[in-house]
Amino acid sequence: MRRLKPLVARSSFLVSLLLAGAASAADTTVLVNARIHTGNPDQPAATAMAWDASGRVLAVGDEAPLLLHYGGLRIVDAGGGVVIPGMIDAHAHLMNLGFALLRADLVGARDRAEVIARLQAFAADLPDGAWLLGRGWDQNDWPDKAFPTAADLDAAFPDRPVWLERVDGHAGWANSAALRAVGRDLSGDWQPDGGRILRDGEGRATGVFIDAASALVDAVVPPASHALRAEALERALAAAVANGLTGVHDMGVSLDDLRLMREFADAGRLPLRIRAYADGDAAALAALCAMGPYEHGGGRLAMRGVKFYVDGALGSRGAALLEDYSDEPGHRGLLVTAPEDFAAGVRKAADCGLQPASHAIGDRGVRIVLDTYARTLGDASADDHRWRVEHAQVIAPEDFSRFAALHLVASMQPTHATSDMPWAQTRVGGERIRGAYAWQTLRAAGVPLALGSDFPVESVDPRLGLYAAVSRQDSEGRPRGGWFPRQRLTPVQALEGFTAGAAFAAFDEAELGRLMPGYRADFVILDADPLAMPATRLPVLVVRSTWVDGEAVYEKTVSETVDPGVSRAPPQPSPD
Amino acid sequence: MRRLKPLVARSSFLVSLLLAGAASAADTTVLVNARIHTGNPDQPAATAMAWDASGRVLAVGDEAPLLLHYGGLRIVDAGGGVVIPGMIDAHAHLMNLGFALLRADLVGARDRAEVIARLQAFAADLPDGAWLLGRGWDQNDWPDKAFPTAADLDAAFPDRPVWLERVDGHAGWANSAALRAVGRDLSGDWQPDGGRILRDGEGRATGVFIDAASALVDAVVPPASHALRAEALERALAAAVANGLTGVHDMGVSLDDLRLMREFADAGRLPLRIRAYADGDAAALAALCAMGPYEHGGGRLAMRGVKFYVDGALGSRGAALLEDYSDEPGHRGLLVTAPEDFAAGVRKAADCGLQPASHAIGDRGVRIVLDTYARTLGDASADDHRWRVEHAQVIAPEDFSRFAALHLVASMQPTHATSDMPWAQTRVGGERIRGAYAWQTLRAAGVPLALGSDFPVESVDPRLGLYAAVSRQDSEGRPRGGWFPRQRLTPVQALEGFTAGAAFAAFDEAELGRLMPGYRADFVILDADPLAMPATRLPVLVVRSTWVDGEAVYEKTVSETVDPGVSRAPPQPSPD
Repeated sequence: MRRLKPLVARSSFLVSLLLAGAASAADTTVLVNARIHTGNPDQPAATAMAWDASGRVLAVGDEAPLLLHYGGLRIVDAGGGVVIPGMIDAHAHLMNLGFALLRADLVGARDRAEVIARLQAFAADLPDGAWLLGRGWDQNDWPDKAFPTAADLDAAFPDRPVWLERVDGHAGWANSAALRAVGRDLSGDWQPDGGRILRDGEGRATGVFIDAASALVDAVVPPASHALRAEALERALAAAVANGLTGVHDMGVSLDDLRLMREFADAGRLPLRIRAYADGDAAALAALCAMGPYEHGGGRLAMRGVKFYVDGALGSRGAALLEDYSDEPGHRGLLVTAPEDFAAGVRKAADCGLQPASHAIGDRGVRIVLDTYARTLGDASADDHRWRVEHAQVIAPEDFSRFAALHLVASMQPTHATSDMPWAQTRVGGERIRGAYAWQTLRAAGVPLALGSDFPVESVDPRLGLYAAVSRQDSEGRPRGGWFPRQRLTPVQALEGFTAGAAFAAFDEAELGRLMPGYRADFVILDADPLAMPATRLPVLVVRSTWVDGEAVYEKTVSETVDPGVSRAPPQPSPD
Repeated sequence: MRRLKPLVARSSFLVSLLLAGAASAADTTVLVNARIHTGNPDQPAATAMAWDASGRVLAVGDEAPLLLHYGGLRIVDAGGGVVIPGMIDAHAHLMNLGFALLRADLVGARDRAEVIARLQAFAADLPDGAWLLGRGWDQNDWPDKAFPTAADLDAAFPDRPVWLERVDGHAGWANSAALRAVGRDLSGDWQPDGGRILRDGEGRATGVFIDAASALVDAVVPPASHALRAEALERALAAAVANGLTGVHDMGVSLDDLRLMREFADAGRLPLRIRAYADGDAAALAALCAMGPYEHGGGRLAMRGVKFYVDGALGSRGAALLEDYSDEPGHRGLLVTAPEDFAAGVRKAADCGLQPASHAIGDRGVRIVLDTYARTLGDASADDHRWRVEHAQVIAPEDFSRFAALHLVASMQPTHATSDMPWAQTRVGGERIRGAYAWQTLRAAGVPLALGSDFPVESVDPRLGLYAAVSRQDSEGRPRGGWFPRQRLTPVQALEGFTAGAAFAAFDEAELGRLMPGYRADFVILDADPLAMPATRLPVLVVRSTWVDGEAVYEKTVSETVDPGVSRAPPQPSPD
C-alpha cells in the first residue's frame, strides 16, 4: 500500500480574501456553497457556517448574512457538497489498524511473481531493518498450486526478514533471513506439538510452517520499535481521516500507546480526536487513578475511561450465553475475565472517577455487566455516568429495560451484524436472535446508541457502517429487505449514532457531534447527501475532505484510492 | 500528640469593611500594618500588600496608597508583624513525616506510668483498629531500670496492638495483642539470626525483642489503610504550615501517594503547594512519560521531576567517596543504584521532558551525577533545564566549576551540616571536609542553591534551617563562630534559599518565592525580623500565621505549642 498524503493538507478550496477594514474578522473562516446537515434539531439544515481561528463554530445559517457578518480572511467553497458533522467511531483500535496497514496485502495474488512484486512495492515505504510482514497468500490461486519456499523470496529479499501469513491463518511462509533469525536448527525429523515444519528431501526446512509451527517464527519477530509504532499510528490516522472520521474511541490503550499518542498530539500530528480507553486494570488505569482523567491541552487526546473484557466473541463461540449454544449443546461460551476481577476493575474505575466500557457479546456476558454495574453504581445509577456496554450483541429479553434503568450507553457496530448474519442464528437459535444486534429495541427502550466499527476487525470506513445500519444487508444486497429489518436504523438515526451519539458516549456532546455555535468545526464534505440517497449508494459516497478544528486534515485528490481493501462498487440493490 | 487545628483556619485578623460604592474592589484584600520583606531586589521592603480573590498579588507598597486604590471588602491587619515570602522546603518527605507523627513520642518518659499515660493520650486520636506505634522509650530512665514486658501495656491496651521502638532503635516492646498477631509460637528456646527474644523463666516471650528479632513483629504490622495514610498526610501538612512552610518539594513520591495528594487537592485539603518528584524509574515515571508533567488545576500539586538515588549517607559510611573513608581504610561507601541504571533513568526522564533530582552525598556519588548529567545533556547543558543534585554534601575541588558549567541546581539541607559536624571530618578527613556542605563555595561558582530540611530526617521547622545556615552551630551555640564559618550564609541568602531559591529549583520562580505583582500571595507573618536579629533568636521566631493563595492556612493560637518535639529555648549565644 502506498503512503497516504500528509496528514494536515493544504486546502485546495482555500480562497484568500483580504478585505480592507475587516481586520477584526481576519481570523474568521466562512464555509459557503454547502448543504449542511447540522445535527442540531433546532436548525437541521444550513448553507453556510463560520468559525474562528481556534476552530470554534461562530454561526450556522445562510450564506449572505454570514458573509456579511463574518466575511474575512478566508472563505472555503464547499463546491455544492454536502456537509455533515465529523464522524466518530465509538469503538475501534488505532494501533491494530496501523499494524494491519503495515502488513502487505497478498490476497488474490495470481502467482509468486505477483507476490514478490506486491512485497517490493510495499517494502519501499518500510523503515530500514523492519521485518516485512504480509498476509493473504494462497497457493491454490497460483498456476502450479504448490507450496512456496524460502528460496522464492530470497532473491528479492536477501537480508530483510519476510514472514507471510496464509489467507486462512493456518500457515506461514518465511524467507531465509527470517529462518536464520529463528534461534534453533529447523532441520531433522522432529515436529512441534500441534504444527508441522515443511522440509525438503534432505530434511531442511523449506520455509513454510503449518499451524502451531508458525510460533517458531512469530517468536522472533522483533517487538515494534518506536519508529515502527509511530509509522503504524500515522497510517491508521491517515486512513481514518480519509474515510471521514474526525474522532475515534480507542478501546484498550496501554500507557505506552498513550505516550505515543501524546507525542503525536504534542507535535501537532494528531489529525483527529482520540478518546482513549485504558487497557483494563493495568498501568494506564493506575496512572489515571493517581492523576485524574487525562486531557491533552490541544483537545485532540483524552483518556477518561477504562475498557474491560467480559466474554469472547460469537463467531468462535466465546461469547458467554445464558443457555447452551444452539449449534453446540453443552457449551455456553467463556468468560475472559473472572466476574470478581471484572467487578473489582469496575469498582476501581468508579472510585477513580472514570467511565467503564465493558466488552460483552453474549447474553450472559451482558447480564454480568448489568449486574456488576448495578451493584457498583447503587444509588448513583441515575447520575450522568454514561457507563458503556461494548458490542451488546445478544441481550436477553428481560434485560433491555435494565439498560435504560441503569442509564447505560450501548456501543454497537453495525457491520458486526452484517458480518455475523450468515451464521449468527445458527449459534443462538430462533428465539435469542430476536434480541441480537437489536438497535431499535434498545432505542425504543430509551438507550442511547453510539456506533462504531471495531476496526481493524471490520473496515475503518464508516460509510460501510452507515450502509449496514440502514440496510442490514451485505455488499451484494442480501438478504432482500434486510436481516431482521425491523432493527434497521433510519439514515438520520445511523448518522446520529456515528456523530452525536458517539460524542455523548465520551462526554463530548457539548462540543462535538453537531455543527452549532460554540462547537468544534469538525466536519466532512461529501459529494452527495447520505440522508437522501438509496442505501446502496452509501458505501460509494465520496469523502471530498475532512476538517478538524476548522482545518482540513484530509482532502481527496483525483487520483487517490482511499482504501484499496474495500470495494468501491456499490452493492446490488435488493429487489423487494 | 494532640491534633493540630483545622488546616484552613478562619482568620482572626480579619476585619470586614463594607465600603459603600467600592463594590468593584470587593474581592480585594489589603494587608496592612506589616513590615514586608518582598524578596524582590527592585523593591525589597514594603508595609502593605494587596491581592485579588484568586490570591494573586496586585500591588506591594505603602499602606495609604494601597488602601486608597484597593481598599475593599477585606483588610488584614498584620499587627506590626514581619511578612516574608512563604517558605518552601526544597527536599522533604511528607508521608514519612506524617507516619512519624503517627508514632507516639516516648523520649524522656520517666517511668512505665508516664509511658502508658503518653500512649493513652496519643491513642485518643488514632483511627479505630490501628496499631499504636511509638518510639523513644529507655528503661534506663526509669526507677528500676528493668526491661518492660507486654503485661505492662495490657491493662491499658487489651485489644489494640502496641509496638514501641526503644530510643536507640535496637529493641522493640510489644503488648500481648501485638504478640498474638505474630503468626508463630514465640516461646521455647530458639532465637532468630541476629536477634533475641526476651523470655521468662517458663520460656514465654516477655514482649521485648532485640535487634533482628524485632522483624517478627514488624512483619505483622498491617500496611497503612487509606484512612491512616490520609491521616498521616494531614498531620504532615498541618505541621508544615504551622512552621511557616507554604511549599514542599516531596522527593520520591509513588503513584499511590500522588493519588492521595490529588484527593487532598481535589477536596481543597492541601494547605500548601507540593512539588512531587516521582520515585525513580517506577510507575509514576511511566505515567508522567505517557501523560506529560502532572499539574493539578488548583495550582497546589505538581509532579514535574523524578528523584533518583545514587549513593548512601555519610553517617553510615554509605556515601560513595572517590578515596577511602578516613575512618575506615579500604571502604569507599556504596552505590544504591548501579550507574548504568541511574543513567538509563536520567535518560528516560530527559526523553520525557522531566527534571531529574538525584541524591548524591559523597564526592564519588556527586561525580557520577555530574558525569551522567553531562553525557545525557550533551549540547543541551546550557538550556534552562535546572537538573538538580540533592544533598551534594561532599564535592571534589575540581567539581565545583562543573556544577556551574552544567547549569545544575544544588539542593542542600543546612541542618544536615550541623547534625553531621560532630563526626563528618572524622569520616572524610581534613582535606575533603573543605569541599563539604560548601554552600558559599557553590554560590561563588555561580550555582543556584535551594534549601530544605530532608524532614523527617531533620526537623520540619525551616527556622532551624535558617539558624543552621546562618550560624553553622548546634543548638548550644557550638562550635564558637560556627563550623567552617566561611561557608555560612547571610540571613538574606539563607532566606532566599528557602524561598526564591527553592521556587527556582521547581520552575516556580515566576509566581512563587517573592512577593510582587502577579505572584501568588503565599507568605508568613512572623513576630520579628529574621533578617535583623541575632542568629540565636532564629529558632524561636514565632510564626503567627501562614498564608497560601491569599488565605490563612495556619494561625497560631495563644495556647498552641507548634512542634512539641523541638526545643523552643534559644541556643546559647556563642561567645566570640
